[in-house]
Amino acid sequence: MDIFDHLKAAAQTDWDSYVEHEFVRRMGDGTLPEAAFRTYLVQDYLFLIQFARAYALAAYKSRTIADIRAAQVGLSSILDETDLHVRLCGRWGLSPETLEAAPERQATVAYTRFVLDCGAAGDLLDLHIALSPCVIGYAEIGRKLAPDGIDALGDHPYREWIGEYACDGYQDVAAAARQHLDDLAARVMTDQRFAELAALFSKASRLEADFWQMGLDG
Amino acid sequence: MDIFDHLKAAAQTDWDSYVEHEFVRRMGDGTLPEAAFRTYLVQDYLFLIQFARAYALAAYKSRTIADIRAAQVGLSSILDETDLHVRLCGRWGLSPETLEAAPERQATVAYTRFVLDCGAAGDLLDLHIALSPCVIGYAEIGRKLAPDGIDALGDHPYREWIGEYACDGYQDVAAAARQHLDDLAARVMTDQRFAELAALFSKASRLEADFWQMGLDG
Amino acid sequence: MDIFDHLKAAAQTDWDSYVEHEFVRRMGDGTLPEAAFRTYLVQDYLFLIQFARAYALAAYKSRTIADIRAAQVGLSSILDETDLHVRLCGRWGLSPETLEAAPERQATVAYTRFVLDCGAAGDLLDLHIALSPCVIGYAEIGRKLAPDGIDALGDHPYREWIGEYACDGYQDVAAAARQHLDDLAARVMTDQRFAELAALFSKASRLEADFWQMGLDG
Amino acid sequence: MDIFDHLKAAAQTDWDSYVEHEFVRRMGDGTLPEAAFRTYLVQDYLFLIQFARAYALAAYKSRTIADIRAAQVGLSSILDETDLHVRLCGRWGLSPETLEAAPERQATVAYTRFVLDCGAAGDLLDLHIALSPCVIGYAEIGRKLAPDGIDALGDHPYREWIGEYACDGYQDVAAAARQHLDDLAARVMTDQRFAELAALFSKASRLEADFWQMGLDG
Repeated sequence: MDIFDHLKAAAQTDWDSYVEHEFVRRMGDGTLPEAAFRTYLVQDYLFLIQFARAYALAAYKSRTIADIRAAQVGLSSILDETDLHVRLCGRWGLSPETLEAAPERQATVAYTRFVLDCGAAGDLLDLHIALSPCVIGYAEIGRKLAPDGIDALGDHPYREWIGEYACDGYQDVAAAARQHLDDLAARVMTDQRFAELAALFSKASRLEADFWQMGLDG
Repeated sequence: MDIFDHLKAAAQTDWDSYVEHEFVRRMGDGTLPEAAFRTYLVQDYLFLIQFARAYALAAYKSRTIADIRAAQVGLSSILDETDLHVRLCGRWGLSPETLEAAPERQATVAYTRFVLDCGAAGDLLDLHIALSPCVIGYAEIGRKLAPDGIDALGDHPYREWIGEYACDGYQDVAAAARQHLDDLAARVMTDQRFAELAALFSKASRLEADFWQMGLDG
Repeated sequence: MDIFDHLKAAAQTDWDSYVEHEFVRRMGDGTLPEAAFRTYLVQDYLFLIQFARAYALAAYKSRTIADIRAAQVGLSSILDETDLHVRLCGRWGLSPETLEAAPERQATVAYTRFVLDCGAAGDLLDLHIALSPCVIGYAEIGRKLAPDGIDALGDHPYREWIGEYACDGYQDVAAAARQHLDDLAARVMTDQRFAELAALFSKASRLEADFWQMGLDG
Repeated sequence: MDIFDHLKAAAQTDWDSYVEHEFVRRMGDGTLPEAAFRTYLVQDYLFLIQFARAYALAAYKSRTIADIRAAQVGLSSILDETDLHVRLCGRWGLSPETLEAAPERQATVAYTRFVLDCGAAGDLLDLHIALSPCVIGYAEIGRKLAPDGIDALGDHPYREWIGEYACDGYQDVAAAARQHLDDLAARVMTDQRFAELAALFSKASRLEADFWQMGLDG
């Protein structure tokens, strides 16, 4: 068990409320209303902007050139993901102008600013644990929604989204993020901190579940 | 018209959704369910902790001893208000242990971390405008709910809360905060920034309205 | 041995270069030129302003009301110390206007901004260790310069300064700061971090030695 | 006159002490001792690490995807410049291990942490003005030391360094940075702030002059 497994075990109920949320289940069986998915997509775009800031914060808080470089790669790939996102949104009839003009919903503000504040008030481990339900959780959800591989999804209405997170590329990103958590934990984790970090992880998982709910409430 | 009046005028709909929220109206006419008020009180305690951090952030971002001192006075009075809050909660049957153990709701996380992030990413004016719906808005609400003075409230069920914000002491705090906004604006406001700051103020007002709604949803 | 003793042992050379600096020795034997002391006093005033910001940063980075309160007490007592400082400067012919108008020297900028950056990039332990050569070191220097007590100093030219740091009140402040370092270390210290923190402590001690040298260079 | 010209005019003495420093003059006429240049090169490497953090801070403090992207490009090019720097150092007999192990000098700490603190405490304009003596000043120095172009430098001992900053590529970077300052100023500058920002610019210029002096003192 790595540190991420320990965090999930300590936060089982909140973690499950996130990865097994009705939004996820209905995306999986294809019954999720399009309006819910579009609401989610728009907010996820706004989410990515704050997420990019979180990686910039990680670079700012780094002490070595190696850590700065790692965070810069993360920042750079989120900016690339934003471009992909704009294209994906386009296929669902959402123009870049619509995205930019959309007001952030409460759920988007809550999770993103919580992550940024964990990072500003704490250290790199706090920041990366606050980010992990998103970075690593999406890989778990992607794999779960494509149990027989992406090709087996056929003309699934959410094939493109599922494929993005089920694909080997993203699974590797998530595996690297798990390894990074373990490396950071080896440097700074203590027994006393584990309880605090597990509470932080629970809260981040609940805020992610709220984010799905916001999509569902459309 | 001072800067606060200009912000309200630019954000009328969102401002009204906050100061005229059903929670406020029903607190005023005494029909607000106790459960809703208790939910609100607990979250407001957690809110004050983050609010104290926001004043600490203002002190950290200050350049002169005068600005540090002003922020320190703010921080200190919030810590005092927290003590009052613990006593008020006690009268509603909420022990300090209950307060400390309560999980933060989404609405609490959203508004508090939004304020802190406005301050971390922006300057002192951003921070104080993000705080203003709370600091100054509560004075407006207090006065509105006690139009004939605190004594005229008789045995109103929410007399104590209304009295806290309608009283001269708090009205002076809010007047000083308005003056401080004007002073800051005189130093750093530009026409181009006004639009950004009005958007920030609108968002903060909506997040405050969501905070009342969270209480109402109990 | 507490954590502060361990840090001193790991950074012996740099620590000694600070607490046994010629400035300190000559203040002790009364041969320090007045011009050097005045240069130091002015810069120390500018130093205290940044130091107040560092305690505000500690309050901002705190997660519990107890930690916020502790940092607020620190901030408040530095602001009080600043008033004392203004009076002390007055006796050496330095008006408040002179203090405010004085440009910060390189040594002042280097140590104060280093401390603030340690706090912004790291956690509370980083911040308090960066502050400790000042907070705790001044108590050690005070005691060393008044080995037979403050009364035995007679009409020593630097009696007032020495007395401020040799007195029981300040010795208690320093003892509390040592205890606080131990409490923080119990929560977040690891073997791997000790080496990093000892390096940080060495650097802070060197920057303090540079601060004395700046005074001496007048 | 753009904003950078206005800042230089307001800070003429400090600016001149930087761009006309003896280190610069002697690099130009080739009489700068190699030891001084090597001392400078090592510290400049450590400087770049903090400089990369400053661009990460700019990305973190950004509100729009466009501003994040601009800061990310800056961060990325500094990381590339660091690689170039390692190669340049190699030619002067300085291994990467030597660079990593070198302790930061007071002058390096002072300027870099001052810049980072300006950014943390202020807004993007504060941050970019604190960076500008370096980003834009090096272009001015490069051009001044190669008045007849890089080819005319022949076998000048510091040809490689001068060429790096005199070349069109770097001149364009500096021109873009000047334009960026003007864009930021158009959004947030006021008359009252100009005086503060000119003081900040003066201080940053003095700290840059101290950085040259540190090299010269070797």
